Amino acid sequence: MDAPTAYARLKTRFGRLSHLGDATEMLHWDLSTVMPPGGAEARAAQLATLRALGHDLLTAPEVGDLLDAAETGEAAALDPWDRANLAEMRRAWRHATALTGDLVEAHSRACSACEMTWRAARAADDFAAVKGPLRTVLDLTREIAAAKAESLGRTPYDALLDEYEPDAAAAEITAVFDDLAADLPGLLDDALAAQARDEGGAAPAPPPGPVPAARQRALAARLMTALGFDFRHGRLDESLHPFCGGVPDDVRITTRYDEADFTGAVMGVLHETGHALYERGLPAAWRDQPVGRALGMAVHESQSLLMEMQACRSRAFLSFAAPLMAEMLNGGPGPGWDAETLYRLYTRVRPGLIRVDADEVTYPAHIILRFRLERALLSGDLALDDLPGAWRDGMQDLLGVTVPDDRSGCLQDIHWYDGAFGYFPTYTLGAMTAAQLFRAAVAAVPSIPDDLARGDMGGLLGWLRTHVHGLGRSVSAREMLVRATGAPLDAAVFKAHLRQRYIERAG
Amino acid sequence: MDAPTAYARLKTRFGRLSHLGDATEMLHWDLSTVMPPGGAEARAAQLATLRALGHDLLTAPEVGDLLDAAETGEAAALDPWDRANLAEMRRAWRHATALTGDLVEAHSRACSACEMTWRAARAADDFAAVKGPLRTVLDLTREIAAAKAESLGRTPYDALLDEYEPDAAAAEITAVFDDLAADLPGLLDDALAAQARDEGGAAPAPPPGPVPAARQRALAARLMTALGFDFRHGRLDESLHPFCGGVPDDVRITTRYDEADFTGAVMGVLHETGHALYERGLPAAWRDQPVGRALGMAVHESQSLLMEMQACRSRAFLSFAAPLMAEMLNGGPGPGWDAETLYRLYTRVRPGLIRVDADEVTYPAHIILRFRLERALLSGDLALDDLPGAWRDGMQDLLGVTVPDDRSGCLQDIHWYDGAFGYFPTYTLGAMTAAQLFRAAVAAVPSIPDDLARGDMGGLLGWLRTHVHGLGRSVSAREMLVRATGAPLDAAVFKAHLRQRYIERAG
Repeated sequence: MDAPTAYARLKTRFGRLSHLGDATEMLHWDLSTVMPPGGAEARAAQLATLRALGHDLLTAPEVGDLLDAAETGEAAALDPWDRANLAEMRRAWRHATALTGDLVEAHSRACSACEMTWRAARAADDFAAVKGPLRTVLDLTREIAAAKAESLGRTPYDALLDEYEPDAAAAEITAVFDDLAADLPGLLDDALAAQARDEGGAAPAPPPGPVPAARQRALAARLMTALGFDFRHGRLDESLHPFCGGVPDDVRITTRYDEADFTGAVMGVLHETGHALYERGLPAAWRDQPVGRALGMAVHESQSLLMEMQACRSRAFLSFAAPLMAEMLNGGPGPGWDAETLYRLYTRVRPGLIRVDADEVTYPAHIILRFRLERALLSGDLALDDLPGAWRDGMQDLLGVTVPDDRSGCLQDIHWYDGAFGYFPTYTLGAMTAAQLFRAAVAAVPSIPDDLARGDMGGLLGWLRTHVHGLGRSVSAREMLVRATGAPLDAAVFKAHLRQRYIERAG
Repeated sequence: MDAPTAYARLKTRFGRLSHLGDATEMLHWDLSTVMPPGGAEARAAQLATLRALGHDLLTAPEVGDLLDAAETGEAAALDPWDRANLAEMRRAWRHATALTGDLVEAHSRACSACEMTWRAARAADDFAAVKGPLRTVLDLTREIAAAKAESLGRTPYDALLDEYEPDAAAAEITAVFDDLAADLPGLLDDALAAQARDEGGAAPAPPPGPVPAARQRALAARLMTALGFDFRHGRLDESLHPFCGGVPDDVRITTRYDEADFTGAVMGVLHETGHALYERGLPAAWRDQPVGRALGMAVHESQSLLMEMQACRSRAFLSFAAPLMAEMLNGGPGPGWDAETLYRLYTRVRPGLIRVDADEVTYPAHIILRFRLERALLSGDLALDDLPGAWRDGMQDLLGVTVPDDRSGCLQDIHWYDGAFGYFPTYTLGAMTAAQLFRAAVAAVPSIPDDLARGDMGGLLGWLRTHVHGLGRSVSAREMLVRATGAPLDAAVFKAHLRQRYIERAG
């Protein structure tokens, strides 16, 4: 028997890494859904050991040698998927070896401490209390960004981005975000005017209810099935913060039920189902290799937002869902349960302070603000002392809202306080990608709007399987988008979608 | 800073091994309770990688060197717990290094294949169909036993036993089992006669019901709490085969509800609670070290059987539980829900063919038969061809029952077909240990019977915490028993218990 090639040995090692990562995913799911509180300490030890073993597997000295040998001696003869797989191995190795163990450890400790302080600081509306810990996190993040910039050959911010959104570049994001930001105030004014005309001055009715959680769950499961979710390969559970977890063949989404207002749980489930369908559609032959994974957080978010925003909040889909909602949530038709009322509920625009409560039109402003501020913080252009004021100015500027306190301002999101710099832009990149992919899908499969009105997602899902899900990481996100839609990311498509739904009030 | 000692380095490594084992435990729990069927393949890959990484950690060349260094240079200065910990590390290392990777792999494959064949063979009552695969398993088990015998310095069968019940010896087990076996037929005859007198010729009524699963669960949780189970550190769920899993600070038991007969689920939960209380009571300071683990399967089973058989099937406990059962299962008192009727239901004796359905009096016969047969199979004294006949003869001899087919004979249990030789004796060793410990507990805390009648397990649990749970593996099972009860394992105590409950019909 011949000795295995360097690439074959790497595949075995990255297979193990992938299984370790999958085990970690399952333990996180358990922690968030069913673990009793007394299990926390033992779980932390389990997760830390899995992380340490994974780090050892990835950074062992022979890995660099194997990568060198595979790239110089074997890559030319590999097929494109294997070549892409090898490139993803190198990327993971570069991220892992860029940092010393001490830096990783110090950053991890600083994030835990800062996050803990932030919880109290947010409750007390006391930014000053968390400024010190946040400064430590920021300093360490700069150090990490510099080290990764060197290892990856990118700018420091792009090196941070790369962890969430491979190959993304702040310069390109800035261009599309600026394009979008320029039109957002006008779009918002027009949308609010159109909405006011539509409502005729009457205050909109609250969602009908209350609706018992068990009924909401049954409806959610019914709609998940309509979207193509296969319960032989996944679950729906409850957790404090909804998420999509698990692994592609056992993908688990969660939600939180509010009996006084069903709208959030139901639409939240459809959002997470979009994530889940992406995971399920990843190339089965590459399950445990880097090339078989999702393209990045922006593309992942595009799949949830495509399902939620493009497909399920459409008039077409809600005309299918409304009778089911009336039947399963209300026991039959009743006031407020008609498709048009539900559509208005699900597409209502109202500028506000809190990102996670924002509607589709105002959401990008929240993200653009954070993207601008985090880059300024990292570069040193913005001092931490000036963050609360910059936040206020930005919100006034972008959305015309007055921030009354830091709790509803720069203290609202966990991300920075937990060390996640470079993550925020993926939300709005995802929304724009979703609009662009959906338009291309409808162009390729013209029956999609009619299909949605019948609750038939087969055509849409089939197109996504071919043009997005099934590609894994065999191409870059940019290349995927160009192939699928004929163009790189373009704010115009997203703006057109907002105009159509919120100003023309169509679809 | 001084370099860490060899022992300190071993503690770090065995800590990681323990966390890996704990992660594996959680993934097994998930697999048995909530995993959708489509997740099986991914889960198998996760578990295989965790196992492989654990094996690598345990058998890396430096581990042997560290053990040598710690034993020669450091052991004398260690305190007794650390010394016991070091000895358990050596035991684990001996088990792991005794076998080549190829042998482990071949055995694992043979067991999977044999188990699969067995499922069909049992259903078809076709022993011949599984004889070939079982022969392969048996041959490989002999090879493993020989290798471990050499590594551990024990006889081959004792080397197999050692994995389940450290330091146990077939010679000692044979002595107590022969002692018990000599009296069992007489005990059984007398018990049946006493029962017949007691029933006055009337056929016993079936358990009252049906009882919805949700009510059974609520009662089970109530009784678990009475026994001392802390739901902040554990869960109760459902699975096809009830078990106790998880980790000491997050211990998870399962059951299966039969709405037509609540008796099995309720008592099964109390049995598993005994296992869970043992895990919870293991020494907290040694959570991730070998010395902090349970003493072995016999002692583990002793803790479940002590709770189930000694405590919860007693007249005293059932006088506390009966009104709760009536209230929570039936909505109030009713025919069949009085303490005496429930006591009769829960202590009924009937010789039968199936081990898992057996009562307390006849159960040991099932085990003694298996213990004798598996030793004869391994030594070669019994040919596989003769197994079905030997089984029939043994059942006739020990219990006076006629085995009509192999499905109710030598095909009934999964153990051998899955490679578990040396496991069976732990059930009856556990039952005998339970009787001996319970008698000692009552002697030390005379209020226990009265406490049970009030549903107060505090005195009993406190005694177990001190004399069993809290010891971890700091002493051997034999030493624990001698310290706690004044004597090594003695069949007389168990026989006295059977006589008292089933012949004298007292308690």
